[in-house]
Amino acid sequence: MTAVKHTVDPLLGEMSRLGADARAAAAVLAQAPTERKNQALLAAAAAIRDQSATILEANARDIANAEARGTAASLMDRLKLNLARIEGIAKGLEDVAALPDPIGATIAEWDRPNGLRIARVRVPLGVIGIVYESRPNVTADAGGLCLKSGNACILRGGSDSFESSSAITACMRDGLAAAGLPEAAIQLVPTTDRAAVGIMLTMTDDIDVIIPRGGKSLIQRVAAESRIPVIKHLDGICHVHIDAAADPRKARDIVLNAKMRRTSVCGAAETLLVDRAIAEAILPAVIGDLIEAGCEVRGDEATRRFDARVKPATAADWDTEYLDAIISVRVVDGLDAAIDHINRHGSHHTDSVVTEDAATAEAFLNKVDSAIVLWNASTQFADGGEFGMGAEIGISTGKLHARGPVGAEQLTSYKYQVRGTGQTRP
Amino acid sequence: MTAVKHTVDPLLGEMSRLGADARAAAAVLAQAPTERKNQALLAAAAAIRDQSATILEANARDIANAEARGTAASLMDRLKLNLARIEGIAKGLEDVAALPDPIGATIAEWDRPNGLRIARVRVPLGVIGIVYESRPNVTADAGGLCLKSGNACILRGGSDSFESSSAITACMRDGLAAAGLPEAAIQLVPTTDRAAVGIMLTMTDDIDVIIPRGGKSLIQRVAAESRIPVIKHLDGICHVHIDAAADPRKARDIVLNAKMRRTSVCGAAETLLVDRAIAEAILPAVIGDLIEAGCEVRGDEATRRFDARVKPATAADWDTEYLDAIISVRVVDGLDAAIDHINRHGSHHTDSVVTEDAATAEAFLNKVDSAIVLWNASTQFADGGEFGMGAEIGISTGKLHARGPVGAEQLTSYKYQVRGTGQTRP
Repeated sequence: MTAVKHTVDPLLGEMSRLGADARAAAAVLAQAPTERKNQALLAAAAAIRDQSATILEANARDIANAEARGTAASLMDRLKLNLARIEGIAKGLEDVAALPDPIGATIAEWDRPNGLRIARVRVPLGVIGIVYESRPNVTADAGGLCLKSGNACILRGGSDSFESSSAITACMRDGLAAAGLPEAAIQLVPTTDRAAVGIMLTMTDDIDVIIPRGGKSLIQRVAAESRIPVIKHLDGICHVHIDAAADPRKARDIVLNAKMRRTSVCGAAETLLVDRAIAEAILPAVIGDLIEAGCEVRGDEATRRFDARVKPATAADWDTEYLDAIISVRVVDGLDAAIDHINRHGSHHTDSVVTEDAATAEAFLNKVDSAIVLWNASTQFADGGEFGMGAEIGISTGKLHARGPVGAEQLTSYKYQVRGTGQTRP
Repeated sequence: MTAVKHTVDPLLGEMSRLGADARAAAAVLAQAPTERKNQALLAAAAAIRDQSATILEANARDIANAEARGTAASLMDRLKLNLARIEGIAKGLEDVAALPDPIGATIAEWDRPNGLRIARVRVPLGVIGIVYESRPNVTADAGGLCLKSGNACILRGGSDSFESSSAITACMRDGLAAAGLPEAAIQLVPTTDRAAVGIMLTMTDDIDVIIPRGGKSLIQRVAAESRIPVIKHLDGICHVHIDAAADPRKARDIVLNAKMRRTSVCGAAETLLVDRAIAEAILPAVIGDLIEAGCEVRGDEATRRFDARVKPATAADWDTEYLDAIISVRVVDGLDAAIDHINRHGSHHTDSVVTEDAATAEAFLNKVDSAIVLWNASTQFADGGEFGMGAEIGISTGKLHARGPVGAEQLTSYKYQVRGTGQTRP
């Protein structure tokens, strides 16, 4: 007889170890008292400040590698750390420590006629897998939010930021150790091998949810491949609708802010809808504001009549997330046409109506099928911090589990605790 | 030039039409007032009573087909309808009508320093796909719960029950029509072609969540194939743990009820754990109760010493959901060993501790990682009705979105409605 040769994929073994360690750490973290978790967050913030020189050295290696590969300048900016950014990362962890602990809260409680007392109590999800790209700060932001909510996490950063993310992870683990919590509660996949992501997405026993952070192609790949539930944000095709009963001053301010405050955020407006009844009165000024601010305006035929500088919009424009200083403008016939356009072409992210008519506003707030709907406010408020939820890990455009900003509370589940006195079921 | 020949899969076209119709109906249902939805439920119940002869004829055809195929007797019982069961289906719809409407409720509301008022409001999920097996009553139960929660549904029943499910669906649609709601809110896949399930599981644009109802192999297939998020219940490996400080009377009553009240339900206990300190005092009586009630007892070595009728348990027993009059029994050393066994071998469904020690009970309720944890009560209470939630569509053992009984409220999402006075983001 010849000996059987076992070929074990070393990467598979490594990922499997990571998963088992995360699962064990999650059990400890789920029971960790609030003070202990906060202690770990504050110690991690201190470690990040103490080790800023080490982090900057690691970042310099990432930058050098990226330059050698000819990485685009926009990606380089996302990758680059400096003392101010490191201070921001440390401060972010302290902010998360200051948030209320969602775990252990009784969400609802009631008694049954047979004397059973039923309580729905908030618990962590377990192990969260985060797949992200070149921003090394996600390592601390996501790790901190998972820790606060009693979850272990497995972080898979971009290969661009591997050295920086490793240095930041080491600080996070120092924080855990200082608080007597298991370091395996925060683990970075210790390889830049792309196959590791594929393995991660099949680890249904050891990872409870996957959260991708990054560009659309990353998120699409994760959503297509994952065997684990995914909380994701795909597109931010956000709209402002100027109703016939809009206050012109509010309309101009809101449109300009929604589009131009920051064009690269998911809550930036991409399409402006205007009721035909007010178009002539408001559109020339709105278009002027936008063009003056450096925005390219693409409009339908009705819009183009108001300003020769407006370029023609094509059908594709209504479905495009520019993330840039470009806006598409369409004149619509009434509220229902606006709602229909938004539900058809939008991405169910964030949409705003400008009107002084309360009934119109309420109809918009109820019928537009988006995570965030606003009345007389800029779409750029689509942000967990602006909502008062503290830090967020992203904005979910899905309807299952979490919708809108995903903060510490959205990284939880619940269980039913039932207290009896010997009840049996008839 | 030759003409291009388009080959369109007719089933794909049919399913695509179903999806588009469901999506359109969902938009109407999401805005339907409570009274209208209840009117549809009551009219559907009336139609089911009125058309009971038609339903029974359809059921007779299903039974004849099943007999011709040589279907097992246990499946035949699930399939068979009679007047009492039809009355139960109609009554179930009336019970759902009497439940509170979860839609439109403000879950939370707060003001921001900038004057924005933020409300988190409950909304339907959209379109729910239900894949089930031979019980035709699921057609009405699931359809009714989806309607109550403002969701459209696409039902895919087992081919065994196709005729019965079609007849019940017709009654549900009569109810919708009577209330002026779109009939496409409840659609049955109009074919027994197995390929239809495969197509359904890829309809990510038109179906928001899939809920499989049936045996483990169905649920595993759906979970493995689905590109749509799945709310599922896989196993019910439930435990009772008799702590050292248990009241013997409560322990005997609870174990007997948890195992033997109904052995085929997911909340039936499959494994009994007993603290070594109380084993000698309690196990002989508990084993006697079970064997007298017709239960096969399989035990570890320590257990077998108390009764010669106990068969040896193998390692596989700790991971087995018998759904039958069989129980595995293990003597453990203390609470932590019991919790460890449950978290390792259980299915995170429902587990109970019997103890008079409050601290022990609280530790069990906190550390056992299951959807439902009970203190001094039978695991057979794992049921939406027993929880006071009204009808349920199943019990979720997953942690994302819904955990435990899935009732009307669990078939909802939420949106943020933000009311401002012209705010822009600095």
